[in-house]
Amino acid sequence: MANKHAIFSRKLRMGMIGGGPNAFIGEVHRKAIRMDGEIELVAGAFDIDPRLSRKMGRMLYLPPKRVYDTYEDMIPGELAQPDGERIDFVSITTPNKYHFPIAKAFLEAGFHVVCEKPMTMGVNEALALKEVVRKSRKIFMLTHTYTGYPMVKLARDLVTAGRIGRVHKIIVQYHQGWLMRALEKTGQPQATWRTDPKLAGSAGCMGDIGTHAANLAEYMSGLKIREVCAELTTFVKGRKLDDDGNVLLRFNKGAKGVLTASQVQVGDENDLAIWVYGDDGSMEWHQEHPNQLTVKPIDAPKEIWERGAGYVADASPAAALNTRIPTGHPEAYIEAFANLYMRTGEAIRARIAGKKADPLSLDFPTVHDGVAGMKFIEAVVKSKGRWVKIS
Amino acid sequence: MANKHAIFSRKLRMGMIGGGPNAFIGEVHRKAIRMDGEIELVAGAFDIDPRLSRKMGRMLYLPPKRVYDTYEDMIPGELAQPDGERIDFVSITTPNKYHFPIAKAFLEAGFHVVCEKPMTMGVNEALALKEVVRKSRKIFMLTHTYTGYPMVKLARDLVTAGRIGRVHKIIVQYHQGWLMRALEKTGQPQATWRTDPKLAGSAGCMGDIGTHAANLAEYMSGLKIREVCAELTTFVKGRKLDDDGNVLLRFNKGAKGVLTASQVQVGDENDLAIWVYGDDGSMEWHQEHPNQLTVKPIDAPKEIWERGAGYVADASPAAALNTRIPTGHPEAYIEAFANLYMRTGEAIRARIAGKKADPLSLDFPTVHDGVAGMKFIEAVVKSKGRWVKIS
Amino acid sequence: MANKHAIFSRKLRMGMIGGGPNAFIGEVHRKAIRMDGEIELVAGAFDIDPRLSRKMGRMLYLPPKRVYDTYEDMIPGELAQPDGERIDFVSITTPNKYHFPIAKAFLEAGFHVVCEKPMTMGVNEALALKEVVRKSRKIFMLTHTYTGYPMVKLARDLVTAGRIGRVHKIIVQYHQGWLMRALEKTGQPQATWRTDPKLAGSAGCMGDIGTHAANLAEYMSGLKIREVCAELTTFVKGRKLDDDGNVLLRFNKGAKGVLTASQVQVGDENDLAIWVYGDDGSMEWHQEHPNQLTVKPIDAPKEIWERGAGYVADASPAAALNTRIPTGHPEAYIEAFANLYMRTGEAIRARIAGKKADPLSLDFPTVHDGVAGMKFIEAVVKSKGRWVKIS
Amino acid sequence: MANKHAIFSRKLRMGMIGGGPNAFIGEVHRKAIRMDGEIELVAGAFDIDPRLSRKMGRMLYLPPKRVYDTYEDMIPGELAQPDGERIDFVSITTPNKYHFPIAKAFLEAGFHVVCEKPMTMGVNEALALKEVVRKSRKIFMLTHTYTGYPMVKLARDLVTAGRIGRVHKIIVQYHQGWLMRALEKTGQPQATWRTDPKLAGSAGCMGDIGTHAANLAEYMSGLKIREVCAELTTFVKGRKLDDDGNVLLRFNKGAKGVLTASQVQVGDENDLAIWVYGDDGSMEWHQEHPNQLTVKPIDAPKEIWERGAGYVADASPAAALNTRIPTGHPEAYIEAFANLYMRTGEAIRARIAGKKADPLSLDFPTVHDGVAGMKFIEAVVKSKGRWVKIS
Repeated sequence: MANKHAIFSRKLRMGMIGGGPNAFIGEVHRKAIRMDGEIELVAGAFDIDPRLSRKMGRMLYLPPKRVYDTYEDMIPGELAQPDGERIDFVSITTPNKYHFPIAKAFLEAGFHVVCEKPMTMGVNEALALKEVVRKSRKIFMLTHTYTGYPMVKLARDLVTAGRIGRVHKIIVQYHQGWLMRALEKTGQPQATWRTDPKLAGSAGCMGDIGTHAANLAEYMSGLKIREVCAELTTFVKGRKLDDDGNVLLRFNKGAKGVLTASQVQVGDENDLAIWVYGDDGSMEWHQEHPNQLTVKPIDAPKEIWERGAGYVADASPAAALNTRIPTGHPEAYIEAFANLYMRTGEAIRARIAGKKADPLSLDFPTVHDGVAGMKFIEAVVKSKGRWVKIS
Repeated sequence: MANKHAIFSRKLRMGMIGGGPNAFIGEVHRKAIRMDGEIELVAGAFDIDPRLSRKMGRMLYLPPKRVYDTYEDMIPGELAQPDGERIDFVSITTPNKYHFPIAKAFLEAGFHVVCEKPMTMGVNEALALKEVVRKSRKIFMLTHTYTGYPMVKLARDLVTAGRIGRVHKIIVQYHQGWLMRALEKTGQPQATWRTDPKLAGSAGCMGDIGTHAANLAEYMSGLKIREVCAELTTFVKGRKLDDDGNVLLRFNKGAKGVLTASQVQVGDENDLAIWVYGDDGSMEWHQEHPNQLTVKPIDAPKEIWERGAGYVADASPAAALNTRIPTGHPEAYIEAFANLYMRTGEAIRARIAGKKADPLSLDFPTVHDGVAGMKFIEAVVKSKGRWVKIS
Repeated sequence: MANKHAIFSRKLRMGMIGGGPNAFIGEVHRKAIRMDGEIELVAGAFDIDPRLSRKMGRMLYLPPKRVYDTYEDMIPGELAQPDGERIDFVSITTPNKYHFPIAKAFLEAGFHVVCEKPMTMGVNEALALKEVVRKSRKIFMLTHTYTGYPMVKLARDLVTAGRIGRVHKIIVQYHQGWLMRALEKTGQPQATWRTDPKLAGSAGCMGDIGTHAANLAEYMSGLKIREVCAELTTFVKGRKLDDDGNVLLRFNKGAKGVLTASQVQVGDENDLAIWVYGDDGSMEWHQEHPNQLTVKPIDAPKEIWERGAGYVADASPAAALNTRIPTGHPEAYIEAFANLYMRTGEAIRARIAGKKADPLSLDFPTVHDGVAGMKFIEAVVKSKGRWVKIS
Repeated sequence: MANKHAIFSRKLRMGMIGGGPNAFIGEVHRKAIRMDGEIELVAGAFDIDPRLSRKMGRMLYLPPKRVYDTYEDMIPGELAQPDGERIDFVSITTPNKYHFPIAKAFLEAGFHVVCEKPMTMGVNEALALKEVVRKSRKIFMLTHTYTGYPMVKLARDLVTAGRIGRVHKIIVQYHQGWLMRALEKTGQPQATWRTDPKLAGSAGCMGDIGTHAANLAEYMSGLKIREVCAELTTFVKGRKLDDDGNVLLRFNKGAKGVLTASQVQVGDENDLAIWVYGDDGSMEWHQEHPNQLTVKPIDAPKEIWERGAGYVADASPAAALNTRIPTGHPEAYIEAFANLYMRTGEAIRARIAGKKADPLSLDFPTVHDGVAGMKFIEAVVKSKGRWVKIS
């Protein structure tokens, strides 16, 4: 079993922007960072409403002086903390609109940054942020959660090792149904900001979950999406952004693919799944049953690989490192999230120590994934049934 | 249990064109027609090589005089038979190229016709055949096998009854992997003619299996494909026809969809599957596990409907009629084929008797499905990444 | 693909006892024998009510002279037929009570016999029948249908080849739920005779389906059940025979096991499933999804073997021979039945020809399986929570 | 989503006995308690080897003064802490042998106790512990982890609500294969103590996992096991305790059942699964895919209930309370563990506050489950193929 580590001298200290009492994903981040006991949340500006930020601080047993009304207050506030108390990094879990200014401000103030996806409101912001990260020489992690799953890492490593030959076809889907009803009209907070172009950006479903699918396809296959031909649809009347999209894909090296994303496929919960086809075999993985990877060699029985098994560790040190408990004892979504934080934490510790990080520690999504994601969104929105290149 | 029937005075008599010793699908047809004991094969021209046709006749215990060297010989030969021995209909299981001339000849000679798909070599032939059928006043059944499955009929009936609301999205796939190797270069007969445009027509994979997927989507949803935007690819070097295709779909009534068909997805056997999404629920069916239909009502548990159950019969008389054995005793592919023949046989008997057929007996694919299939193929081949309308 | 055969000079001719208009399994037998076109049904005594026997004869398009009022009439009737018309064998699909006298009479009259299970009303009858078969030198096949599935044969061959090491544990279940309601009080014919000890024998559920499970375990593992410790229960009030039973098993060679059979497990349809554990791996098979066999090697990924694949044929000529259509095109229950008839037919043809049958043709259940089944039933009924040996 | 809570004034403080650097389950407990941020680990005696205890303390960033060499030292050590720092409760994750003395000592010293299962080395110790708990008036929670899964709670609530009628049959299994090899001879620590009667008690597999299965069956059905008829086997040569067992069960109210537990079923990982059959329906749950519960009403489609769905919350407030993230985002084993701790924590807080706990907070396994477990083990070991009553 892994996520065993060297003995460090102290826990890392994290601050959080967003994740107030009405948020969903902020508490998921917190559960993920808590799980392994290597990072502690010590400060935050949890809500755009200062009262809610303070309420959240109390719910988290934080000292009031480390709970801020705004992220702008938090930067000088934390810089003023003594060395042994100041946050090492910040995690941004706000609606998309705020990602860029917050990330930029903290990076420029000298803090490492974890940021929710999609990274920014557009490609220009994304490129600007890439430049900010480069100049800052700080760690930047983008929470494309699904690449934190160990069996996704196994799949990536099997592809790299040539186990399925040259990849020529990828089918990836991210299917949800929860937005079939116009929840945004009921004031449901998750639905409200996700369907508002001012907060979410130019794409709805494609930005929220389509980018996860695109990122997963690239991560697992090692290929890059070079061209898209897309059909975006808004099925629910009055909604301002797409709630469904189907995309033909052309990857580099001649591979082809299809990406479908929807939030109006009633009966689908969080059905992210991927099929990667090579000349000598293929692989299949389903997020809702994440502990199994199906590998299908040509002319041989299908194989079900089980997370935690010895043969998985043999084939993928990354899968082993990102595994906590034995095979048959399922791990799931929060662990995938926690893996991203564990690896990022190792990279930050190495940076603090002035050392080179272990390559396995650097296995998390970065600002480059964020730029790719924003280019994907832009191309898909622009396509309208024509092929559009991604530079 | 169903496929119980009125007591008829005699079995129907069938002739067959194709289905020689090296063929695959011909013997499947024969097993299907034999199963229920209502149709007997009494004559045939089984192979383009007369010696193989005769060999097949002996293997089938047919009297030599009813085994013909060519289909052209068979028409006068059968017309010369006495009333009580002459075939009632002919089943055509040759490569695509021969479907049209054979079907036309038998229809014009006064025989009912069963024909393999894709129906013809192009839209023009298809429209011509439609006219021949119309003039002949004969029964014409096209073997889109998969609509013979009872759970497909149940799905169709649940859609019609409004159980999932208005259908707005359909995903359908037909995934195989057997042509990843260039089997046509080894002389494998199935691969050889399917990859030869002179015998198969303008499309490879899309004609062979993509049309099944398109037909299934239309049958189950009651919608019609109105526009396609497709990317066809030939992955195996030297192959003349597509072996993979991804298609964006626009149906009438505003529904959208995706159709993927491939014969180079290594590890996939005969993975025809469909997801139909309505405003109030959705459905999912997999050909490789055909006895179950998953129905997913909005805001309620998913349901697994099992073939043969009483509640299936209550919801779908067609599913009940096309069922032979009790729930839990699986039925499969040959039964689906047999259902098409049983219903077609009932329609032929009614026609012979000068009676109106029961509507449930007319639930089989016709020349109209064949025309739609050829238009679909033509549009998909023409698309090359642009939207093409289907008239 | 298999079930291809030598060219024989004629079809085999079969008679049937039972299988009248109200029966279930008789028509399943008929569909199975028809499917491959190698056996034709030419005579029968289909019901204990002569009017129903004649009605059935008409439904089957049989000449009236070959439809008998009783099985006793049928023997001289068929013996009086000319050589080219007389039946070669008879298939007995009556309630259990009649199996013995009918089988005995036909065997002694010189006919080969196919018989439904459980074979007789008790061990004594079973032993007597074994002696009759021995003296008759005729083929006797007992329709333990489930051993006709190709993936069951593959499993047997993998065990024999040592692929999972020495077998030490077997779990087998046959779970149905259809008798949770007292259907016998409604006059439902299947329920009525199965719950009547005068027609069914000393066991209900255990005789009807428990014996299938026991037979499957022995067939697949090559082991023999030597001791049982059982708890039989009648859950439905007023029912005279067990409708549920749980049995601890001891096999030869030190293997242990559990067999559960029930007809009151609501929600289970025909859930026969088996898990065979060896020292180096295990296997799992489910009748409701019969085209897959799961093989689980120690310290390696689980494997899903798919019926019809080349690697299956390589590992098991028997699986290949008992397969009709390509992988991914599912086969099911009727094909399993048809396999028993195909192999039995080959054995009968060899006997008629005075030749030794191919060993693969002799791969069907015999009177010895029937004796084992009756001993199993007797021991289970006798056990009442104590270990009882099977001689 | 749930596991939302009132705002408490402080975190609970926990100490731990066991869970050193070589342990498996101790760190699982720690991940579970950390996840929700409501409990903090502040002290411990982590290993029987003091150096390893101290090493673990450093790995956990604990102040050295709160890390003890022995549990005996820890009691006065913690009693000497000021009110705001002293542990509220202790969690015991040692081998079985030490459970009783440690639990007794801490309870008598006034601490609440969480304890791993099986609770004690025998029934006498269990009864003595029950008395200690009663006298102490402290909270005692036994970590039968699997009843912490929300879908198990849903199942229990559906049974209670009569959704499947009167329960008459239960099949429960806990199948592992990891002990097929004699790992204890390699020094593997998990295998070593589990197969040593001095540390594990009178049963091996049955104590380690069989009791989980028994507890799950009782929890889900509301019934109690009253009689067992068991066959325990040691398949691996030289092993001192059973590694496989099959048990016939009689519950109160006339229900019957079967429990199978094994650690030598190669290919099975942690396959705890249960089927509960009532007169009007049944349910099925698999620990390896814990987010789904299958409900099978009589005469209606099977239902798949998905954790996190609104209809689950409607049917089971307990399932909703024990759920963290939305449907389709899988939860798993650590969350189940965390649920036990969250509820126990609420009960401890209520006790501290002198208030009555919410009934939903008291939904965790107690000393009574532990007594039942020890009686089950004792009866199973004693049975040797005869029925043994459980008082």
